[in-house]
Amino acid sequence: MANNVPHVVIVGGGFGGLYAAKKLANKPVRVTLIDRKNYHNFQPLLYQVATAGLSPGEIAVPIRGILRKARNVEVLLGEVTSVNLAQSKIQLPPDELDHPGGHPIEISYDYLILGTGASHNYFGHPEWEMLAPGLKTIEDATEIRRRVLLAFELAERSARIEGIQEPINFVVVGAGPTGVELAGTLVEIARRVLASDFRTINPARARVLLVEAGPRVLATYPEDLSHSAERQLKKLGVEVIVNGMVTDVGPDHVQIGADKIPSAVTLWSAGVAASPLGKKLGVPVDRAGRVQVEADLSVPGYPNVFVVGDLAAVTQKNGKPVPGVAPAAIQMGKFAGNTVLNDLKGKPRERFDYFDKGTLATIGRAAAVADFGKVHLSGFIAWLSWLFIHVFFLIGFKNRILVLMEWAWAYFTFQRGARLITGNSNSIVTKAADEMEPVRKVS
Amino acid sequence: MANNVPHVVIVGGGFGGLYAAKKLANKPVRVTLIDRKNYHNFQPLLYQVATAGLSPGEIAVPIRGILRKARNVEVLLGEVTSVNLAQSKIQLPPDELDHPGGHPIEISYDYLILGTGASHNYFGHPEWEMLAPGLKTIEDATEIRRRVLLAFELAERSARIEGIQEPINFVVVGAGPTGVELAGTLVEIARRVLASDFRTINPARARVLLVEAGPRVLATYPEDLSHSAERQLKKLGVEVIVNGMVTDVGPDHVQIGADKIPSAVTLWSAGVAASPLGKKLGVPVDRAGRVQVEADLSVPGYPNVFVVGDLAAVTQKNGKPVPGVAPAAIQMGKFAGNTVLNDLKGKPRERFDYFDKGTLATIGRAAAVADFGKVHLSGFIAWLSWLFIHVFFLIGFKNRILVLMEWAWAYFTFQRGARLITGNSNSIVTKAADEMEPVRKVS
Repeated sequence: MANNVPHVVIVGGGFGGLYAAKKLANKPVRVTLIDRKNYHNFQPLLYQVATAGLSPGEIAVPIRGILRKARNVEVLLGEVTSVNLAQSKIQLPPDELDHPGGHPIEISYDYLILGTGASHNYFGHPEWEMLAPGLKTIEDATEIRRRVLLAFELAERSARIEGIQEPINFVVVGAGPTGVELAGTLVEIARRVLASDFRTINPARARVLLVEAGPRVLATYPEDLSHSAERQLKKLGVEVIVNGMVTDVGPDHVQIGADKIPSAVTLWSAGVAASPLGKKLGVPVDRAGRVQVEADLSVPGYPNVFVVGDLAAVTQKNGKPVPGVAPAAIQMGKFAGNTVLNDLKGKPRERFDYFDKGTLATIGRAAAVADFGKVHLSGFIAWLSWLFIHVFFLIGFKNRILVLMEWAWAYFTFQRGARLITGNSNSIVTKAADEMEPVRKVS
Repeated sequence: MANNVPHVVIVGGGFGGLYAAKKLANKPVRVTLIDRKNYHNFQPLLYQVATAGLSPGEIAVPIRGILRKARNVEVLLGEVTSVNLAQSKIQLPPDELDHPGGHPIEISYDYLILGTGASHNYFGHPEWEMLAPGLKTIEDATEIRRRVLLAFELAERSARIEGIQEPINFVVVGAGPTGVELAGTLVEIARRVLASDFRTINPARARVLLVEAGPRVLATYPEDLSHSAERQLKKLGVEVIVNGMVTDVGPDHVQIGADKIPSAVTLWSAGVAASPLGKKLGVPVDRAGRVQVEADLSVPGYPNVFVVGDLAAVTQKNGKPVPGVAPAAIQMGKFAGNTVLNDLKGKPRERFDYFDKGTLATIGRAAAVADFGKVHLSGFIAWLSWLFIHVFFLIGFKNRILVLMEWAWAYFTFQRGARLITGNSNSIVTKAADEMEPVRKVS
């Protein structure tokens, strides 16, 4: 790698960082992309892993593999813990696994592109995170899958032993696109996928509750589509609770105002909290911790530092914020990469303009809403558009084919292939043998 | 489910237990199959998950799904901790997750089929297991995948920072079929799959060592095939060490006699240790802890209790032990199920006869050996036979197609799709920020 060209450091291999790297591939710069994980995950389909429809390997691809042919791009595994804007350096903790007692690592840059994303907001209750996981990583997705499937297994066990079917409630907090997708798919699992799997319990009696603090689901969508989405959710069997503020989360319940709702599995998809790296920069951030960038996505006072994707607070021409969706992150990543190249050519800076191609939210089997500006779609047609657009964007030809096959299979057979309860935690927590008395007898 | 028919309890959803359940499906018995996991995994292909070729969901299927149409079979998630042969009862610990302070559960049976399998033997050194994991479960496979891929990532990091490429050695202990498969595939990963992925290290310089305590690899195969396998391994690039007794395992090395071999990742595939349930029965077991069953696979003195699969020590007519392979477990499972049905019809007991259809071991890309009695095959033809036989046996039509696609893709592109480093453990262990001084600077 030539050392006499500018060094661009990209932090984060999500949509923003990845597309910035692609824009800079085989151009006269030297690029270092740093991520905590070795893979890019296709976040719009993460809920499919959480609900056992797809396997992690079908929606996640090694970052190195994607950038294999970008000979000027190196990929490093690591977590950037601080940025020194004044000195143009980032810092990584030492690798304690291979080099115990090592030193922190500083990497200097000519340009920096930050795309470390955002996660959910527990509104001052970090202790709720364990009880109600969000869905941002592959690990989140397999943990949610584990909890959901385990809820049915434990219900079957206790029905067989106690002779009564305890209620199985799934509570999804937050009715944005992810919450709506999760709720719709959970109903499908309970009513169709697992329908013939159990002998003692009836999985179809499981309830799925979608709780939204605001007055309507999909709050960022036009009002007619929100109402259509709510109708489609109810038709599928989701119980929708709007204006429902969660005041407490426990291991087996969710408190919504005066109502204590029993919950076997609680999932969180409310609020936005930007990656903590944003606040560490020492520049203005919004309430969610997003960096308030200039019109060219650069950090105020540091034209060589860009923020892209969910970590950036950007306003559109129409005064609305740029939404935290994959197409916006991709456009920002490409824009930042391009701006670096334009700088090198001596071209003036441009203003980032979000091009809204429309947004789609899937609700469940053959149910979705789509907002293409003047055209609003609902139901099966919206769902088909959603399916093809998402598969089309899936990185890697092979995965596109695999995912289409999985879906065709699931659609026609009502089966979901990845119903595995995996994980390090014991599937059933047990006591030491000597504590176990007396015995319950079952034949 | 009718209660006036005999109750058959099956412990373990591996090949033995599963095929026993299939044999008893929709027959005049009531069946309870109990497993610690909710899925059956196709163990012959587990090494493909460990080496990032296949995803867990492609080789594991929910047991409930397989037995959906067997209306007289119920599946329970749980770990059987003891068997009371005299009283015809098994015991499960209580479910502490859902019912804290609960009682242990006793389930009575008319017939019992035990198929809890075997794992590797660390020869009195249980502390080696953490350092050198074996490959028996999906969790083992993803943990091994994590360690292997992480070894390359850490080497790239330290090469970039220290400026030197540290050696990456993979040591596989035990040259049975699993060890041979792992070693062959690891070489392929280093030399072909990752060839263009790194910018600083050269993954092809990684070494793969296969260490065998005995005088030849694949000791249970005919001698000519052992030699062919060794030649094929060496041609692929595996360093084979025979007559090499491991005397110590450390976090970064393996001691073989006087030689201390540095090892980035050590994998264990030596020895056989049967599931501890065997020893708890209070009947004779062999050195590996396998139950010495009667000719009809029943436990001496308890004709209503059968042991199948790797937990059973069975001798063939020719005096050799029945090998611990999937076809043997399947045949035993079917035989035990059938024996129960014959009992009900008043037919006399028969003797279990292992029908050896031949054995195959794959070594790597287009490399394998096959022993079909008089016919011994090596190389590409053996590998093709192996591929089609294994895919043919894969449970579920959809998975067969998916696996064939993954393989065709991998064969022609040299890519392996599931190269994800996932898991709860931090990918890079880091110190607290205040301990980190001074700083190492990198540009």
